Amino acid sequence: MRLLLVNSNTSEFVTGKVYDAARAAASPATQVVPVTGRFGARVISTRTELAIAEHATIDLLAEHAPGCDAVVIAVSYDVALWAAREMLDIPVVGITESALLTACMLGTRVGMVVFGRRVLPIYQERAAQAGLANRIAGWRAIESSAPYAAGDQREADALTLAAIDALVEQDGAEVVVLTGAVMAGVPQRLQPRAPVPLLDGVSCGVRQAELLAALAPAKPRSGSLAPLPARELVDVAPAIGAFFGRASTNNKE
Amino acid sequence: MRLLLVNSNTSEFVTGKVYDAARAAASPATQVVPVTGRFGARVISTRTELAIAEHATIDLLAEHAPGCDAVVIAVSYDVALWAAREMLDIPVVGITESALLTACMLGTRVGMVVFGRRVLPIYQERAAQAGLANRIAGWRAIESSAPYAAGDQREADALTLAAIDALVEQDGAEVVVLTGAVMAGVPQRLQPRAPVPLLDGVSCGVRQAELLAALAPAKPRSGSLAPLPARELVDVAPAIGAFFGRASTNNKE
Amino acid sequence: MRLLLVNSNTSEFVTGKVYDAARAAASPATQVVPVTGRFGARVISTRTELAIAEHATIDLLAEHAPGCDAVVIAVSYDVALWAAREMLDIPVVGITESALLTACMLGTRVGMVVFGRRVLPIYQERAAQAGLANRIAGWRAIESSAPYAAGDQREADALTLAAIDALVEQDGAEVVVLTGAVMAGVPQRLQPRAPVPLLDGVSCGVRQAELLAALAPAKPRSGSLAPLPARELVDVAPAIGAFFGRASTNNKE
Amino acid sequence: MRLLLVNSNTSEFVTGKVYDAARAAASPATQVVPVTGRFGARVISTRTELAIAEHATIDLLAEHAPGCDAVVIAVSYDVALWAAREMLDIPVVGITESALLTACMLGTRVGMVVFGRRVLPIYQERAAQAGLANRIAGWRAIESSAPYAAGDQREADALTLAAIDALVEQDGAEVVVLTGAVMAGVPQRLQPRAPVPLLDGVSCGVRQAELLAALAPAKPRSGSLAPLPARELVDVAPAIGAFFGRASTNNKE
Amino acid sequence: MRLLLVNSNTSEFVTGKVYDAARAAASPATQVVPVTGRFGARVISTRTELAIAEHATIDLLAEHAPGCDAVVIAVSYDVALWAAREMLDIPVVGITESALLTACMLGTRVGMVVFGRRVLPIYQERAAQAGLANRIAGWRAIESSAPYAAGDQREADALTLAAIDALVEQDGAEVVVLTGAVMAGVPQRLQPRAPVPLLDGVSCGVRQAELLAALAPAKPRSGSLAPLPARELVDVAPAIGAFFGRASTNNKE
Amino acid sequence: MRLLLVNSNTSEFVTGKVYDAARAAASPATQVVPVTGRFGARVISTRTELAIAEHATIDLLAEHAPGCDAVVIAVSYDVALWAAREMLDIPVVGITESALLTACMLGTRVGMVVFGRRVLPIYQERAAQAGLANRIAGWRAIESSAPYAAGDQREADALTLAAIDALVEQDGAEVVVLTGAVMAGVPQRLQPRAPVPLLDGVSCGVRQAELLAALAPAKPRSGSLAPLPARELVDVAPAIGAFFGRASTNNKE
Repeated sequence: MRLLLVNSNTSEFVTGKVYDAARAAASPATQVVPVTGRFGARVISTRTELAIAEHATIDLLAEHAPGCDAVVIAVSYDVALWAAREMLDIPVVGITESALLTACMLGTRVGMVVFGRRVLPIYQERAAQAGLANRIAGWRAIESSAPYAAGDQREADALTLAAIDALVEQDGAEVVVLTGAVMAGVPQRLQPRAPVPLLDGVSCGVRQAELLAALAPAKPRSGSLAPLPARELVDVAPAIGAFFGRASTNNKE
Repeated sequence: MRLLLVNSNTSEFVTGKVYDAARAAASPATQVVPVTGRFGARVISTRTELAIAEHATIDLLAEHAPGCDAVVIAVSYDVALWAAREMLDIPVVGITESALLTACMLGTRVGMVVFGRRVLPIYQERAAQAGLANRIAGWRAIESSAPYAAGDQREADALTLAAIDALVEQDGAEVVVLTGAVMAGVPQRLQPRAPVPLLDGVSCGVRQAELLAALAPAKPRSGSLAPLPARELVDVAPAIGAFFGRASTNNKE
Repeated sequence: MRLLLVNSNTSEFVTGKVYDAARAAASPATQVVPVTGRFGARVISTRTELAIAEHATIDLLAEHAPGCDAVVIAVSYDVALWAAREMLDIPVVGITESALLTACMLGTRVGMVVFGRRVLPIYQERAAQAGLANRIAGWRAIESSAPYAAGDQREADALTLAAIDALVEQDGAEVVVLTGAVMAGVPQRLQPRAPVPLLDGVSCGVRQAELLAALAPAKPRSGSLAPLPARELVDVAPAIGAFFGRASTNNKE
Repeated sequence: MRLLLVNSNTSEFVTGKVYDAARAAASPATQVVPVTGRFGARVISTRTELAIAEHATIDLLAEHAPGCDAVVIAVSYDVALWAAREMLDIPVVGITESALLTACMLGTRVGMVVFGRRVLPIYQERAAQAGLANRIAGWRAIESSAPYAAGDQREADALTLAAIDALVEQDGAEVVVLTGAVMAGVPQRLQPRAPVPLLDGVSCGVRQAELLAALAPAKPRSGSLAPLPARELVDVAPAIGAFFGRASTNNKE
Repeated sequence: MRLLLVNSNTSEFVTGKVYDAARAAASPATQVVPVTGRFGARVISTRTELAIAEHATIDLLAEHAPGCDAVVIAVSYDVALWAAREMLDIPVVGITESALLTACMLGTRVGMVVFGRRVLPIYQERAAQAGLANRIAGWRAIESSAPYAAGDQREADALTLAAIDALVEQDGAEVVVLTGAVMAGVPQRLQPRAPVPLLDGVSCGVRQAELLAALAPAKPRSGSLAPLPARELVDVAPAIGAFFGRASTNNKE
Repeated sequence: MRLLLVNSNTSEFVTGKVYDAARAAASPATQVVPVTGRFGARVISTRTELAIAEHATIDLLAEHAPGCDAVVIAVSYDVALWAAREMLDIPVVGITESALLTACMLGTRVGMVVFGRRVLPIYQERAAQAGLANRIAGWRAIESSAPYAAGDQREADALTLAAIDALVEQDGAEVVVLTGAVMAGVPQRLQPRAPVPLLDGVSCGVRQAELLAALAPAKPRSGSLAPLPARELVDVAPAIGAFFGRASTNNKE
């Protein structure tokens, strides 16, 4: 199968890191196709950049999803996840949703580690939107940009382990999710020093995407995920226009 | 005061209709500045178009918000609402949020009328995200595109009144919100035939925006709405780049 | 417009302080009419006094609401708020509800500062009754009676600022409400030293009441807020009896 | 033991009916002391009358609770319930709360029958305030005043049975509460024709009050139910003033 | 009346301790019939032992419930509570549910003390299943096995009092439940040193069971608690088979 | 890998049917090991039988889990699911939980079809316990035992399709789960006539179990799922005793 790995950020470095993790998690028979956002933030870390990335994600999907069997939105905000599920007739997963759902099978209450206090509310909103807020034991935000670059990860690892311990000791977490696309691979490194199972989004997302592709669910014919109607859009990429069955126009009504 | 009225749709017809309603609701001393989306759907009615409109809204705000005292996002999905609150240091309201909050002062439980079953889940998600789901008495979806055009509204009116009666009789609604930017003005027309108060988003949104502008709240210095950091974005409109304190670049990392 | 400002406490001092704040918040064209409770607690601070104040509030409204365009219940417990909305055909707001609803447009999660641990549960119940409990980031109770008297406010200010900081740092509040009618004016004084916007109830309540009066919503004809039926009440103030369309009687059935 | 039975309504007829039911439910050794409201509605059926009854209930308790071992607030709105628990150092129960809590031991989901659509929201708010909203299977409102008078109850019975059946068949109720003080005794009459257990408030309330009196719980020394502080109240009944350790005054501050 | 006291543990020591507490709480006219689990854990303290105890409880009920008027499941996990309510036509209570429901009449928010962090999540799940999670102020787990044996309780008492104080001071508890069958009697010993009322499960459970037996509710004829249908079970105790109207068989289908 | 398929019912017919479905869903390299309950109900359909099956499931796991890589509890009540996760150090899934979690990736709101109104509340409790109640669009119960036997399924199919349509049309379901182990395979048969994707538990459970086995999560060392402590159990199967590190004893304490 052919799995589209969508990095809505414009950083090729992050795409590479995520690709390596996805490749390691995927079945040997799976072809992983990584793509990088054409416009917007290098690494999304504000609500404004996230709003732009909604469009950038649609743009990537329109161009690259045809011919694939499933999609992993490999941005930890699960950007444009439900829009993608409407737009496409193949399964789409988001890495944070995947990690959360997988965690629900491993512990009664899930601890969440997030990079950056500023974005913490965004993750909390995502968990609430997923209807899973009451499975969350607690949240810890870590201030470190080390995982977004090559180089020494010892300080970031120490912060992460302290956050995990706090979630377990104080909040009763029985499983912990390390959010952030760049945390792929970290669970394996830190697991020996953690008292509960650790999960990252990319490993869970790739596997859940493969699972759904094998399950081959029907495309909804009604509801908010039904196929896109024919519509004329203004000044969007031709590939997007094609998904609406029309050429895009650059004339306003 | 100067009030930016953002229509993230690319339809000038809708902008005109919304402007008339906003003008009617605004104080005489308020200058209403209507703007229309530069790209995307004529009238957003799918999740995919909404994702594109997130960007289109940021684009409009970057270009037009400077010099204004408050913003009304005049699209009933409250598109990019929290991103706008982060991006700007002036108050921003969404018309559906405004109608919901205003309704909370008029009845214990709020009935919601939505145009189109397909988009009903999107409104339900918005109410849930606003933390107001348990104030909602019920939902009714009407299938009619009449309000989006000039012409006879009698059939649409009859459907709307039937929905209102059902919300009151079956679900115990004590106030009803007519969602959709184009429903501005309709409450006045239908109120004599409705047993509970009717609200539309534009009338509430314009007034709440004026209220907030007068209140002049401080800009948060911490949290997810703190001022945007300096960041380099790729291939976005220069006005957006300026909000991040940098010229946009068209080179990927 | 004529705005009735209801202080259900029997303290004229508090009425004066609230009036000043209301006057400062109101539009120049608004006439603010302050009234003070005829019986009950000087400053309500127990559930028992609050139960008595429910009646005292109805008593004030029966006497003074006729001829007014809107009402502000200027007691932070929002005493008799929904009863007032049933009894009258003009808009009624409560100052804590107003502050909460206004705060919902300024931050994703709202911090609450309350004066007195004893009454903290009452405020928590009010937030829950308003359906807004999941918008609350956290609560902090301050033990100080300084704001209820003239004199040095520096210690109370320091306690309040510490509570605000705790709400922001520990609980992720993005906006903070200072409850208590006597906190009117305090946000302006403390805002320069606070990292997120501060709101008080009177400023929000007066403005929301003006907004609703201008909106002029219809009176519900059905539900729990429909006009009072004709009823004979025993031994209540004549003005109350008049609202039920009957003279009060002093004979039990 | 001595059990105070508080009818906050001013109708002696209702007091008599409730007394008969309480007497039938009480242990032989229990002395039931019925009292009737001194002022307010004959039979509370609006929010405004309920606000007045909050005070009337405090008034009755101040006069009659001393010397009693427990209190039943025998008004189905559980009027002033938590204030009474603060004011007194003996157990206090409300009849609707008692019926709900008792029902929770008899079925997973509880059906609720209410007399009058107008007051339905008030009961729903009470269930929510009790934290039991998610144990409620559904609500049915019956329009009949027959239970409030002597005379033929056959039509009211038929309506009640139809409501019970609907709650069981459509909503999955496994136990049904008949709210309203005057429904005491009705469960016995209708039980043979109902598929699930029926409860009324007075029977449950009297028994729960006896249980709590025998349990003899400590009076809280902290929190919102701690003993009333010494306070000066204005123009309230001397008995109320005595509860605050002071004579009431008729001079405003 | 005859009250079956079910200890699903296999420890006679615990049965004896619980019996003493039940005897002290019961009315003189009540005959308390204690029974001990035939198989499984001495003192259940893992999920696996609890699963086995579900069966052990059914086994005890099948053997001993006939001829009784009510049942107290005297294991603090309320094991097999709803199954017992289905199986039998007499009232059944669980001691933790009873304590929680009773506590709801004594304080707005309930503090919970649990013995052993490992089992804390199980109690939290029980509170959630009872629909009472939002009445809980907080939880404290104590590590001490002293209450499960004779001997000095001073250290356990000190830990318990510290937990109570933390629940009151930090979490706003207005009443505290000491979970665990062996905590029967402890509230009386510690009450003088606690600022809010203390409850234990056995005292509440026995009284609630007596209350329900006196109330004599009807057996549901529909829903998940309707009488057991005739069914053939494989290799279960003859007494269980008899409840399903059949001899058990030891042949698989 | 070796996948244990646990049918806690004592019906070999059901085991066979479930095995066929599991075999069809499993990867070719997966060895599916089906086991059937040693005691209890042929097909669990009451709470009492379910309580017995908790023990029967532990009994099967103790005997058969050693040597396996993952477990599917193939009873739609997810019997003993969390106990199994505590008892074992390999992944365990329940078929209804698996279907629900998988459905969360395919539609915003999930419709649920259940066989038998009597057991409907049990499924609703399971969804609530999974923390997923607010993802559920609605429930429909079908009265048919046809799926539990060979023979004509046309009437059952018609009932199922009608339930699906009702869930989609009335409740807004975007994906539908057919609960019941015997519904395995039915989605494929009915999908062409359904407007939204259909899922069954066995297909989802087998795939999620394979996913988790490949992910190889760490065994928790703390919390309610930590390894079983050494304990002496009374009169249980030797294999169970072995899991607690002791021989079982048949002497009561």
